[in-house]
Amino acid sequence: MQFTSESVEALVEQLTKLPTIGRKTAQRLAAFVLKMPREDVVEIAKALVAVKDRVKHCAVCHNVTDTDICPVCASARRDHSVVCVVEEPTDVMALERTGEYDGVYHVLGGVISPLDGIGPEDLRIRELVERITAAQSEPVVGGDGHVAEEAGSYGNGHPPVREVILAMNPNVEGDTTAYYISQLLKPFGIKVTRIARGLPIGGDLEYADEATLSRALEGRNSI
Amino acid sequence: MQFTSESVEALVEQLTKLPTIGRKTAQRLAAFVLKMPREDVVEIAKALVAVKDRVKHCAVCHNVTDTDICPVCASARRDHSVVCVVEEPTDVMALERTGEYDGVYHVLGGVISPLDGIGPEDLRIRELVERITAAQSEPVVGGDGHVAEEAGSYGNGHPPVREVILAMNPNVEGDTTAYYISQLLKPFGIKVTRIARGLPIGGDLEYADEATLSRALEGRNSI
Repeated sequence: MQFTSESVEALVEQLTKLPTIGRKTAQRLAAFVLKMPREDVVEIAKALVAVKDRVKHCAVCHNVTDTDICPVCASARRDHSVVCVVEEPTDVMALERTGEYDGVYHVLGGVISPLDGIGPEDLRIRELVERITAAQSEPVVGGDGHVAEEAGSYGNGHPPVREVILAMNPNVEGDTTAYYISQLLKPFGIKVTRIARGLPIGGDLEYADEATLSRALEGRNSI
Repeated sequence: MQFTSESVEALVEQLTKLPTIGRKTAQRLAAFVLKMPREDVVEIAKALVAVKDRVKHCAVCHNVTDTDICPVCASARRDHSVVCVVEEPTDVMALERTGEYDGVYHVLGGVISPLDGIGPEDLRIRELVERITAAQSEPVVGGDGHVAEEAGSYGNGHPPVREVILAMNPNVEGDTTAYYISQLLKPFGIKVTRIARGLPIGGDLEYADEATLSRALEGRNSI
């Protein structure tokens, strides 16, 4: 194949480095970029580099943020006694999209995966345990976040954690990591839950795989 | 939804401006960018802006290029007596990928589409006619490009065009544009062809739409 523009080819090559973007999509994107106003393209370029320059990890939950403590951890409106443990920052985004969760997060940065050489020490599991230890030992007024909030304990520390939700992906690695963490948290005597597995909304019994269907049966609720 | 990082959110917003990239894909890309080395991200950003700064249109075929005349038009190995007329630069890329075509191109920059307010004067149809007129009137040794090439007529001009392939997309606008151009080229008395319509390779008769199937029947070849 003969390329008529080296710059376009260079862009196509750069774009294919990104996930979900194959050669054809990259070419389509490059063609679109060619037609875009220069200012808009510069804005995209700036946003890309800004992310690398400005984004850091929240000191509390290790989610991505522009500030030292992320807005979720800094918010007095969130229930700091419920900690949802997720794999990646994208999972936080997904959960925030639901608008249903008002607790805080803890981002592990991955899952235990011996095949990929990722052990518990490569994840922020120690930080989770330390965080819970710190919260449990601090003196607070009420047993849950809301009471503590009213009592003005925020700013000094967090209320004791009363529930840890393990929201790792429903696969072998996610389940392993969830089991590992649940064992670690046993001594604290706090409630440890795992997000439900079952048929997705709009899903079809006929086309569901056996594992999902078994889980859906197992986890059946009385109505 | 609460965003924990304004920079990430800004990048997601910028990325969704691009075609084929929805919110979810943009978030996935942003998450990937966060994990990329800074140099790689800077390279992508540079490639984006470079495309806007360096790319121009070939003076002959109007395809995108970094030079005044694109490599295809400048090549002595291509058959300059066959001109393939396409809508966009991406179509040139698609045809070059086949490795089957050794003629040259003419990029219209779109198709006649009255609904979008695009008439023949908005496309490079006039340029096509001028180009063919110029090529036909120039004195060359042979009747086709290869002879002309041997005779060293390159550099002075092009051999007369002996075939124009109309490779606009197989839809109403593409067909209209093809018909319009074929009428314009009639006075030249050169061969004007349209790319074949039919079932795609690997396609299934059962799932083909009626229009495609009719075309496939119409355009049947003896074997």
